[in-house]
Amino acid sequence: MSRTEVSELDPACRSLGVELTDLGTGHARLRLAVTGDMLNRQGVVHGGYIFLLADAAFAYAANSHGPVALAQHAQITFLLPAYADDVLEAVAVERARQGRTGVYDCTVRRLGGPVVAEFRGQSVQLPVVPRQSSNQDRGDADGSA
Amino acid sequence: MSRTEVSELDPACRSLGVELTDLGTGHARLRLAVTGDMLNRQGVVHGGYIFLLADAAFAYAANSHGPVALAQHAQITFLLPAYADDVLEAVAVERARQGRTGVYDCTVRRLGGPVVAEFRGQSVQLPVVPRQSSNQDRGDADGSA
Amino acid sequence: MSRTEVSELDPACRSLGVELTDLGTGHARLRLAVTGDMLNRQGVVHGGYIFLLADAAFAYAANSHGPVALAQHAQITFLLPAYADDVLEAVAVERARQGRTGVYDCTVRRLGGPVVAEFRGQSVQLPVVPRQSSNQDRGDADGSA
Amino acid sequence: MSRTEVSELDPACRSLGVELTDLGTGHARLRLAVTGDMLNRQGVVHGGYIFLLADAAFAYAANSHGPVALAQHAQITFLLPAYADDVLEAVAVERARQGRTGVYDCTVRRLGGPVVAEFRGQSVQLPVVPRQSSNQDRGDADGSA
Repeated sequence: MSRTEVSELDPACRSLGVELTDLGTGHARLRLAVTGDMLNRQGVVHGGYIFLLADAAFAYAANSHGPVALAQHAQITFLLPAYADDVLEAVAVERARQGRTGVYDCTVRRLGGPVVAEFRGQSVQLPVVPRQSSNQDRGDADGSA
Repeated sequence: MSRTEVSELDPACRSLGVELTDLGTGHARLRLAVTGDMLNRQGVVHGGYIFLLADAAFAYAANSHGPVALAQHAQITFLLPAYADDVLEAVAVERARQGRTGVYDCTVRRLGGPVVAEFRGQSVQLPVVPRQSSNQDRGDADGSA
Repeated sequence: MSRTEVSELDPACRSLGVELTDLGTGHARLRLAVTGDMLNRQGVVHGGYIFLLADAAFAYAANSHGPVALAQHAQITFLLPAYADDVLEAVAVERARQGRTGVYDCTVRRLGGPVVAEFRGQSVQLPVVPRQSSNQDRGDADGSA
Repeated sequence: MSRTEVSELDPACRSLGVELTDLGTGHARLRLAVTGDMLNRQGVVHGGYIFLLADAAFAYAANSHGPVALAQHAQITFLLPAYADDVLEAVAVERARQGRTGVYDCTVRRLGGPVVAEFRGQSVQLPVVPRQSSNQDRGDADGSA
C-alpha cells in the first residue's frame, strides 16, 4: 500500500470526522472531536469510540511500512472518562517488529490533557506476493486494522 | 442501575442502529447492521466497530447485576473480516465474578455465520455508596462500558 | 506432533511436578502443587506460576490437533490469590479456530475451589510443510507454548 | 512497602536465580539465566518463564511507589524464541498512572540481543488504610504481582 493510499482516510474515519495530523514510518497521530452520538449510559464517551480511534491510529502506523498489515489482536486499558465536546488525540508508535509481526502502542488523551486510555495492537504483515499467502493469512488476520 | 435503564440503549448504540435482542443477568445480545461508513481501507468492517459492538454487549451484561459496572480493560482477537451489509451479532456472557471484578466473554459473528472476533472484557463494580468511592474508582475505571 | 509426543510432559512442567490429568482434541487439564518456592513478596503464589500453569494447559490443548501450534499472545486476569500448599488446576478449552489461528480459554482454580485466574491464549499453527514456512512464521510465533 | 523490602527478592525469583539489576521509582530490571528445566516440547524456553520474568519486573516497578500494588491483568506477545543458556533481561517501565491504577510495559530480550517478548501489566494500588479496603480490593487484585 503506497504512502499516498495510507494518507487517504478510510470511510470509517472520514465519516466520524477523524483528522490524520501526523503520519510517518511506524507512527501516526489522529484526532477525533467527540459528539453526543458517541456517549454511553453514564454520559461519557463510549469505550468503543475510544478504542476505534486508537485502532485507527494503530492501523495507519502499522501500514506505514508498505506491505499491508492486518490487525490480529488489540487490547485497551481505560484510565479516565472522556466527555462530549472533548477532542481526543491518539498517538500510535511502533514498539517492536519481528518477522511479519508488529507491536504498536497507542495512547489516547484529551487534547492537551490527561491520558484517557492505553492501547496495544499486534499486526501481521501480508507477504508481498499476496495471492497464495493471503489465503494462509486469513486465519491470523482479518483486515480490520 | 435498574433493568429499565439498562434496557434503554445508550446514545452510541442508538445512533448506530444497534438492536438489543436479549438481556439477562450476566448476558446480553446485540445486533448491528454494517453500513459503508464502517469500512476501513481494505474495504472490510473497521475493527473499531467490531470492538464497539462487543464492548457494548459487555457493558449491558456487566450492568445487568444492578450496581454500575465500569470497563477497566478489554481485548479482542480478530479472526475473519466482516463486510458491508453484514449483520453482526455480539453475544456477551459472564465468565467469572470475584468481589467487584467481573470477566465477560463476547463472541461476534456474522449473523448465522462464522465467528468474526473473540472479545474479553474486565469490569469493576462501583460500591453501592458511590459518592466517596466513585472518586477512588475513577482510577480503575472510566465509565466507558 | 503425535498424541504420544503431546502426552509427554515438557521439561518445564516435569521439573515443577505438573500433572497432565486430561488431554483431548482442543482441551487439556493440568495440576500443579504449589511449593514455597513459588511465592511472591505478599506470601501468595507468584502470578508468573499461575500464568505458567495456564499457558502450559493452553499449549497442550492447542497442540492436540496435530500440526505444531505456537503461542503468539496470551493474557490473564488475576481474581483471587492462591497459597502455599494449594493444588492449582488449569482447564484449557478451545474457543475458536480460523485458518491457522486458535483462541483458547483457560480457567485456573484452587482444586475444588474458586477461580484464581482467567487466561486466554492465541496460537498459530505451523503449516504442515514446515521448512520454508517455519521461517516466515518465526515472526508471528515463538514456540513458547 | 519500603524500598528495602522491595529490593529483597521474593521466594519465586530467588529460587530461580533471578537478579534485580536495577530498581527505581516506576521502573525495574531483572535478569534470569535460563536452565534446561525451563524448556518446552519444542526445546525453547517455555512462555510461562518468559512471562514470569516480565511479571516479576512489573511487580518491582509497580511497588516502587510505596503502597502495595497488586496485579490485576497482564498480557504478553511472544516475538522470538529463547534458548537454554540464554540470559534473559526484563525491563519494566511505568507507562501511565491514574488514581489507583497503573499500566507498566516490560520488554524481555536475550541479553544484548533481540526482543523476545513484549508484556503489559495493569496494577491496582491498595489504599494506605488497608484493613477494610484490602477486603474490597480482593476482588480486583490477587497480590500475584
